[in-house]
Amino acid sequence: MEYDTFEKNGPALLGLGAMGTALARAWLAAGHPPTVWNRTPGRAAPLAAEGARVAGTAAEAVAASDLVVVCLLDDASVGEVLAGVDLTGKDLVDLTTGTPAQARARARWAEERGARFLDGGIMAVPPMIGAPESGGYVLYSGSRALFEAHRDTLAVPAGTRYVGEDPALAALHDTALLSAMTGMFAGIAHAFALVRDEDVALQDFASLLAGWLTAMAPHVYSTADHLESGDYTKGVTSNLAMMVQGNATLLRTAEEQKVSAELLTPFMALMERRLADGHPDEDTTGVIDLLTR
Amino acid sequence: MEYDTFEKNGPALLGLGAMGTALARAWLAAGHPPTVWNRTPGRAAPLAAEGARVAGTAAEAVAASDLVVVCLLDDASVGEVLAGVDLTGKDLVDLTTGTPAQARARARWAEERGARFLDGGIMAVPPMIGAPESGGYVLYSGSRALFEAHRDTLAVPAGTRYVGEDPALAALHDTALLSAMTGMFAGIAHAFALVRDEDVALQDFASLLAGWLTAMAPHVYSTADHLESGDYTKGVTSNLAMMVQGNATLLRTAEEQKVSAELLTPFMALMERRLADGHPDEDTTGVIDLLTR
Repeated sequence: MEYDTFEKNGPALLGLGAMGTALARAWLAAGHPPTVWNRTPGRAAPLAAEGARVAGTAAEAVAASDLVVVCLLDDASVGEVLAGVDLTGKDLVDLTTGTPAQARARARWAEERGARFLDGGIMAVPPMIGAPESGGYVLYSGSRALFEAHRDTLAVPAGTRYVGEDPALAALHDTALLSAMTGMFAGIAHAFALVRDEDVALQDFASLLAGWLTAMAPHVYSTADHLESGDYTKGVTSNLAMMVQGNATLLRTAEEQKVSAELLTPFMALMERRLADGHPDEDTTGVIDLLTR
Repeated sequence: MEYDTFEKNGPALLGLGAMGTALARAWLAAGHPPTVWNRTPGRAAPLAAEGARVAGTAAEAVAASDLVVVCLLDDASVGEVLAGVDLTGKDLVDLTTGTPAQARARARWAEERGARFLDGGIMAVPPMIGAPESGGYVLYSGSRALFEAHRDTLAVPAGTRYVGEDPALAALHDTALLSAMTGMFAGIAHAFALVRDEDVALQDFASLLAGWLTAMAPHVYSTADHLESGDYTKGVTSNLAMMVQGNATLLRTAEEQKVSAELLTPFMALMERRLADGHPDEDTTGVIDLLTR
């Protein structure tokens, strides 16, 4: 009975790393005080002072709310922390970073224990949590019923994007977005390496670069269209033959500027391979086939 | 005397590939009919029908206007086409794709022949020329006096960005922007490879991806700031230690999805090297040092 009031309040939250703590504060600020638990109890003390209920064990935290949010170090920690805890009838939302296969396996694990399961992929850093204007959001996949039931509570720390019933999809989308960003950051690093020692105002260069990348990002819609139709030449204005020719200028410039081209050459090699396979009129969509076949 | 009227009209334009033809049409449409020349004369015929004056030789074209725009296959072609042509007093604008060093050498070459020189890097594909709403533009570097004198004429086909007196800077900026785009396209290819065989609506994914890349592009301002200050830890919310940890999830996901990670691993390797060098609290700016040292 002790926890009845908390069931009507915020969720149970297991894991108070930087992200978990930010989530707790967002629910506190919105008037939904969570019941928190962390393996190292010291992390909970400041939150307790702010109005969070602190549970002594993971089981005690889980018992405090129908909605149980876990935000732990990794997927193995989720299994360890919740081992032997009664999850019957619980709605388990797993915001721990993991792979699509881990999310699928964890969903089965939760269902075997009588819980509904929703996996989440957080597209934000902790300072963006509880700050809707930051544009951060959480990708969700798994039980749509769970998502709909707790939508308002889940929307408190950050925007929500539900991407499908397959519990793997949140982690898959999360990883895909971060992978694309990794490529973009690699390109950005090469670009700055080229100009840094020249008479270039770096903030002006950054402004050109941000504008250019933003203008080129919608390229993804034609990539999606090409993959859907199977015709990789539709609407192509800069084709593979021209781009491969342009690569020679990029490589020669890197050499002149004494910059290693190692971040660009793997993509260029695949463009050349696709061109050699007889696809001069495509854009770069064909490279995707080479990555997956 | 025959060409006096053309001097008051559009520029002389040498080179009628797809880009040169688009430039010619933009000047024609704006009421500045250019005098055009192309090595293969057939290319000029449709433009003549639209009101362009066609020169029989490169020298004849050059004689027709103070402003001479060349848009040829490569830098060597510029030297060949203009060999023996009197450039005294001419304003030469070179829109031919080349490297920064080629632009510098071509500027000296032009000055030795009594011409002012401006190099241009076209950040547009031909369909974007003469369509201001397309957002395409041309980077210019070299003689500021030349740029100012012909600014209005140069602004007809596309927006203009003057980036400095060093004639190398337009090509350098051009190459840097294209290099960054190459990295972004590599990341995009990896991202689509991850999701393409799953139950994912590709246009919805493209929308998430475009939004994410657009939201992350302003990262370039902090990179510029870090390079200027030499402090690569300032304002970092996602540090190298965390990112390298995240890379493991990206790699594991690629393996699960049977996607080669070859487009991401070179950047990850440099992140790891920088981390091993003792910089856990930086962002990825330090990778730039590893490319240039």
